[in-house]
Amino acid sequence: MIGVFDSGVGGLTVLRALVAELPAEQFVYLGDTARLPYGTKSAETVVRYALQASEALAAFRLKCLVIACNTASAVALPAVRARIASVPVIGVIEPGAEAACAASRSGHIAVIATEGTVRGGAYQQAILRRRHAAQVTAVPAPLFVALAEEGLCEGPIAAAVAHHYLDPLFAAAGRIDTLVLGCTHFPMLAGAIRGVVGARIGIVDSAQTTARHVRQALEQAGIAATGGEGGVRLLATDAPQRFARVGARFLARPIAPDEVTLIDL
Amino acid sequence: MIGVFDSGVGGLTVLRALVAELPAEQFVYLGDTARLPYGTKSAETVVRYALQASEALAAFRLKCLVIACNTASAVALPAVRARIASVPVIGVIEPGAEAACAASRSGHIAVIATEGTVRGGAYQQAILRRRHAAQVTAVPAPLFVALAEEGLCEGPIAAAVAHHYLDPLFAAAGRIDTLVLGCTHFPMLAGAIRGVVGARIGIVDSAQTTARHVRQALEQAGIAATGGEGGVRLLATDAPQRFARVGARFLARPIAPDEVTLIDL
Repeated sequence: MIGVFDSGVGGLTVLRALVAELPAEQFVYLGDTARLPYGTKSAETVVRYALQASEALAAFRLKCLVIACNTASAVALPAVRARIASVPVIGVIEPGAEAACAASRSGHIAVIATEGTVRGGAYQQAILRRRHAAQVTAVPAPLFVALAEEGLCEGPIAAAVAHHYLDPLFAAAGRIDTLVLGCTHFPMLAGAIRGVVGARIGIVDSAQTTARHVRQALEQAGIAATGGEGGVRLLATDAPQRFARVGARFLARPIAPDEVTLIDL
Repeated sequence: MIGVFDSGVGGLTVLRALVAELPAEQFVYLGDTARLPYGTKSAETVVRYALQASEALAAFRLKCLVIACNTASAVALPAVRARIASVPVIGVIEPGAEAACAASRSGHIAVIATEGTVRGGAYQQAILRRRHAAQVTAVPAPLFVALAEEGLCEGPIAAAVAHHYLDPLFAAAGRIDTLVLGCTHFPMLAGAIRGVVGARIGIVDSAQTTARHVRQALEQAGIAATGGEGGVRLLATDAPQRFARVGARFLARPIAPDEVTLIDL
């Protein structure tokens, strides 16, 4: 079983990429919908929530734990690794940073994320560790979260919000050639974002890069499932009906309300 | 001391109206920023959070407790009244419903609110109790919360979002003459909302109506402060710096970060 943890439904974009990459695996996904969003909360609070969620998932005899939430990956990865020491714990920041460094020619990389992720500087540091001369500009884009949750992923509002965040970013630093979508909600708005930045800019979606990273880690450890049918189990800490309704867009398939089990942390 | 409770900073619009109405009173305001927003969460979870917050405020020897959060007022008022039985507990729904009934000529009243407030039907019921023949149309407008938190209260994005929610509402029911802003965040967007609905529609802001209601309740009970200087104490369950920064817009005065005390519930 592979555990996947997120503050809510956004991480279902990561789960979707994981299922596509590893179709024979069993997944258990936990969305902490009672306490979302994490992106505006302090590091201490996010660490406490992430540890509780990780312990709940660890009860499923995991072979790997994926922190699909960028904010939790940015601030809580070391704490979760220390607590859940028996299995590999993989966050979304390192794979995203790696993909950005590989994609960028100019070394000028932009990151859009939640307030918490930007403030912590995790993407900036992860990119600079790999590429010392990189220039990283990170800006918070919190309205994208609300738009994705509302299903307003295209149309005039999405376009106006994309211009609001991206026009100043690209006007100020002309040599940016790579944009990292540093929040699991943002791939839902990839069309509106592409419409603003144009075809020349490489867009890095950490969902896909994380899924590849997990597959490689399992293969290297010799513990990837080699056959049989995979499956997905969905857990939420609140409002399973909303989880099913909103989450269906992120997972790109219908979710029946009774597919989502309510748990208490 | 008058306690004021909200899920975050939105209720500061109610605190601001209370301070204007009752300048000689002492207020203690608690924003449950660790667990906001309440508007997308289940009734059970909101009741649990509201009880914890109310108990924390009750430790301040209150003479009155105001639930400034529409979502918490809608689902948790009876539970909080049962728990904090020693002082009057006043929510924002009943004063808002009363003001809407007084303002409407046609009896066709629209309510915009969070998902949780709309789903619970509290405004609809409170209006129909006072005016049996009223026609109430309630729609969720969650993006307004994100816009107010971001400070995007005017300009093209606010206008586009206001059209998105309000055009279908007013197109479908032509005789609406009164619009209730059923979330403490929404008065921040009153200008954008007015720009869409035009001058003919009465806009009911439950912050002001609740403040008048509280003053009347204190006067009738003979416990209103009659002189001296009032004051405000601010508590938050997370991220006091963000509370100060974002809250300043809602309270319409600067808030120093050390003015906000962090508490744990």
